[in-house]
Formats: sequence, C-alpha cells, structure tokens
Amino acid sequence: MEKYKKELEYSYTFGIFPTFELINKKSEYVQKIMIHEKLKITQDIQNLIDICKNKKIPVEFCTKQIEKITDKENTLIAGVFNKYNSQILSNKNHIVLVNPSDMGNLGTIFRTSLGFNVTNIAIIKPCADIFNPKTIRASMGAIFGLNIELFDNFDDYFAKNNKQNMFPFMLQSNCPLQSIDNSVKKQPFSLIFGNEGSGLDTKFLQIGKSIIINHSHNIDSLNLPISVAIALYEFTKK
Amino acid sequence: MEKYKKELEYSYTFGIFPTFELINKKSEYVQKIMIHEKLKITQDIQNLIDICKNKKIPVEFCTKQIEKITDKENTLIAGVFNKYNSQILSNKNHIVLVNPSDMGNLGTIFRTSLGFNVTNIAIIKPCADIFNPKTIRASMGAIFGLNIELFDNFDDYFAKNNKQNMFPFMLQSNCPLQSIDNSVKKQPFSLIFGNEGSGLDTKFLQIGKSIIINHSHNIDSLNLPISVAIALYEFTKK
Repeated sequence: MEKYKKELEYSYTFGIFPTFELINKKSEYVQKIMIHEKLKITQDIQNLIDICKNKKIPVEFCTKQIEKITDKENTLIAGVFNKYNSQILSNKNHIVLVNPSDMGNLGTIFRTSLGFNVTNIAIIKPCADIFNPKTIRASMGAIFGLNIELFDNFDDYFAKNNKQNMFPFMLQSNCPLQSIDNSVKKQPFSLIFGNEGSGLDTKFLQIGKSIIINHSHNIDSLNLPISVAIALYEFTKK
Repeated sequence: MEKYKKELEYSYTFGIFPTFELINKKSEYVQKIMIHEKLKITQDIQNLIDICKNKKIPVEFCTKQIEKITDKENTLIAGVFNKYNSQILSNKNHIVLVNPSDMGNLGTIFRTSLGFNVTNIAIIKPCADIFNPKTIRASMGAIFGLNIELFDNFDDYFAKNNKQNMFPFMLQSNCPLQSIDNSVKKQPFSLIFGNEGSGLDTKFLQIGKSIIINHSHNIDSLNLPISVAIALYEFTKK
C-alpha cells in the first residue's frame, strides 16, 4: 500500500460513508477494509464488519498503514479497491461532462446525479481522475452507484449514443432553461456540460437543442455542479 | 502581515478575480494590494493597478510577504482588507443559513446567490468564517457584492424581518418544491437552510411554509449549495 497516485491500479475510500457504499455496491472489487486503532466500534461499524465477513472481505486493524496513505487527515477507516471500468447504458438519461478538471466538482456531480436517479455518466477525456480519493470523498461514495464511462472524444460518445436527445448547456445559447416547454425535455436525454473554465466549444450549438441557465451579470458563471444540479432538477421534475 | 487566522481584524483575497471584486465593490476597506515578482503584468493587471492609483490604494511588490501568508499556494496577487460589518435589507429576498459549517460551501452559496440577484444573506451563528480566504476564494469574490449579516440566533433574525415570506427547506416537510404553485412563491422571500450535517430543527416546521427538494433514496441528502441553488432557481424564475 502506498499513498494514492493516478498510476496505481487500486484506490481508497476514506471514511465510513464512502466505505459503506463501496462494500454495498461494488464488493467484487474490494481488496480489504483497514481500521485504525482509534476507531470506536459502534453498531454501524460492527454492521460493516459483519457485512465484510459475509462477503469474505478481509478486515485489518492497521493503524500505521492508514496514517501512511492519508497524510495527517483524521481518517479512521479506509477501503482498498481495484479500479474498474463500467459502461453507460444507451436509451437511459445521461449526464455528459466534457473535460471536467476539478475532482471536488466531479464528486459533487456524481452525488447529485444519483440523487436525481440519473445513473449513467459519460466523461470526455482529458478529465480529472474519477478514482482519486478526493473525488470519491466529494461524491460521498455515490460513485459506486453509477455507470461512468470515459470517452476519448465527444464524437466517440455521439457515435454510440446517437438516439439520445442532446441538450448542450452553454452561455452562447439563446434558449433559457426556464422557458423550455415540458414537451421539449424528451427522454432519454443527454445533458452536456463543458469544462469549468472554458465551457463548451461553439460547435455544440449544432448538436441537439442548446440551453442557457440565465444568471445576473454580477458573476462570471455559475459553478459547474450548480449548473448540472439545476438542469437535473428541471429535467426530472414531474 | 501574518498568515490568516480568524482573530485578525483584516483578511486577504488571493488571486486576480477576488482581488478585482474587492477593489471594485469594497474599495473603502482595502489596505493595499500585494504583487509577486513572478506576476506577468498583462493588460488586466495594468488596469487593476490603474484603478488602485485612482482610488489611492497602495500597490506593493512584495514577493516574500505573499509567500509567507499563502503557504505553498501559487498566488501571485493578493489584496489586504479590513473586515467590515454589513446589514441585510428587510423587504428584499433573503437566503438564511442556520449554522453553516463549511467555508467552501459558504463561498459557493455566495456566488450562486449573487448569480440569482439575491444579495441579502442572513447567517445564524455559530457558523464558518465568512472572511476566511478559503470562503472568499470559493465565492470568486462574490462576497463583496452582498450584504451579509450575522445573527446570534434565528429569533433575532425573525424579530427584525417578520414581514418576510419564510420557506424553511427540510427533509421533514411534505411539500415538494416542484409541486408549489407560483402564487405561493411570494416575494420578499426568505429561503432558510440548516447545517450541512443536521439540517433544520423540527421547530422550523411551524415557521412559514416548509419545503422539501425530493431526491432518490440512494443518497443521504443533496449537498447544501446544491439545495440552495435549486431553490433559488425555482423561486426567481419568471
């Protein structure tokens, strides 16, 4: 075990909540659970240990290991799991993120998407590391309940999913989200968002129906997870 | 100048964007602007220096000072300003945050509120430090365009603002945001949100009209800035 870096074929969940989600949703990829000697064995923790026993996942008490891989953070429980590939399902609703660069943003978007039952996420490379423990922590473990597929470029995504109703979100659109009739919000939808700094290229104006979330001139832009959340709310509400 | 801590009567803006906002919106509180020798003097930076000259704000080239106050962050420009009090305006729309504990969340909420033209923010103590450079950075400087007033408790806020239409957002409510008729969303509104971990106390069910933002059972809760953003979108859309 060593401190996380992108090249490793495994990664970590830090903290009880993401570790629970890992064990419940992706137990087949778990190597082991590590517990710090300072962890109080509450009923929740005992439940987690019992689940591990049932699923034949090793549970180790290894204080030094945890301290080594987490820096000075106050982490008392960690999971170790092998990175895995997953594939999105066509004909389901998608979130499509083009070149997202911030791990905290990615995690927050994962959590929000799962919260709105949109469980297929396409990500266009280059992008932030989806398996970095920071991303996982920001997602509160929601990452383990999603299908997340990485694509080399948008054309690859489009070729495999061209039956989707595409909605690129961009400041150059002249169609405000709040003005869109319910009949336009057709499922399966793909809600497409650009990079935090640069947004989507103008070529996306030619794809599907572009949408803008209006905001005052007092700010430069809404932040990315905020835009995704508002779009998800509007597209999924009954 | 020393590294930021809460007790100081001044604080810092790190980076060009928050520093610009500080100078444009709250120049009366600025002590000085500090520039690192590695900063490239672009047209934007020259504009900023010119504005400072006009407003008689000192601009110092002091590389060591900046490095001292920012740790190892790659900050090349910083503002120094005196902390100030501001007051919210009654009869305007408010965001009310009860015991928010995370500085990044606070900053994101400030940025989003300004984006939806809701510029009066009430915060009930105890709360995260609104003037910590982390809060300011997360707000992208939006903090300087807002009236933010701190209250010792909710009753104090309520006593001074009892003409507001109050909407506590809480999981115990049985009224989903998406089902609320436009006639209910009366202005001036106060959208009230609890702490990240504990939410609002059940006593808030007795105040105004409580609302829930529905989410799937696959997540514990939406994160706080996401909930605030969705509520702001729904209450301000035409």
